[in-house]
Amino acid sequence: MEKIEKQGKFFCEIKFNEKLQKSKIIRFKNNKWQGLKSIPYKDTKGNWAFIERIPIFLSENANFEVRYFEIAPGGKSSLEYHNHIHLVICIKGKGKLRLGKSYRTIKYLDIVYIAPNEVHQLLNPFKEPFGFFCIVDRQRDRPIEIED
Amino acid sequence: MEKIEKQGKFFCEIKFNEKLQKSKIIRFKNNKWQGLKSIPYKDTKGNWAFIERIPIFLSENANFEVRYFEIAPGGKSSLEYHNHIHLVICIKGKGKLRLGKSYRTIKYLDIVYIAPNEVHQLLNPFKEPFGFFCIVDRQRDRPIEIED
Repeated sequence: MEKIEKQGKFFCEIKFNEKLQKSKIIRFKNNKWQGLKSIPYKDTKGNWAFIERIPIFLSENANFEVRYFEIAPGGKSSLEYHNHIHLVICIKGKGKLRLGKSYRTIKYLDIVYIAPNEVHQLLNPFKEPFGFFCIVDRQRDRPIEIED
Repeated sequence: MEKIEKQGKFFCEIKFNEKLQKSKIIRFKNNKWQGLKSIPYKDTKGNWAFIERIPIFLSENANFEVRYFEIAPGGKSSLEYHNHIHLVICIKGKGKLRLGKSYRTIKYLDIVYIAPNEVHQLLNPFKEPFGFFCIVDRQRDRPIEIED
């Protein structure tokens, strides 16, 4: 319960994209989405490394947000928990999912549901990039990083 | 404007899945998600054909829903519009997106945003299956099918 109390009741500050009143196709060519750029994984330093984030979709016309993350060999996301859930869909390479103290391998098109307040981390101990979509609610609480 | 008025203000009736308090991995093996079954595309007949739907994720813990659709050669989704948006991610084969009267080809990992109230349809005039994720808000209005 302590975890939940520490989380507070804040929503992330979301900067809205254009309202997207027109339909749009983002083309995937030469292993990249045309017109999309990667941004830092987080604004703050932490227990993450060698991970890039590409914002795929965010609009006030929908209650969800879609991001693509790619973890280079040796990299990892933050070890953290939060009240909002993650839906992860692997589309490149393979990686490890840490849940609490256990690790499981994630491969192409495996789908991962990360439940509320479960301590989790995605890691790439392999030799090729590990890429995945991560779908979240647009309004959500801030993650709490924890020490390993 | 007529289109919008006709749509009414109803949300789809959604039958919630288990509350999903535990994290979960759905494995993709032999070209199928283990434990997931396809269901009819819609409960009612309409201007759609040769399309199957696999519910990927629906939970009261999130404000979005993820479905996978696969359209066999010669098949199509309904020609329809609705206020809620679609985010489509192609992961198998290729297909056509119809927006109003125009058609565009959709290929592997292309991402399609379908704006509110845009008349749209997905079709497969090709020789291989066309498969895609479609992410929507969990609470959304009912689609209105239109005559071709």
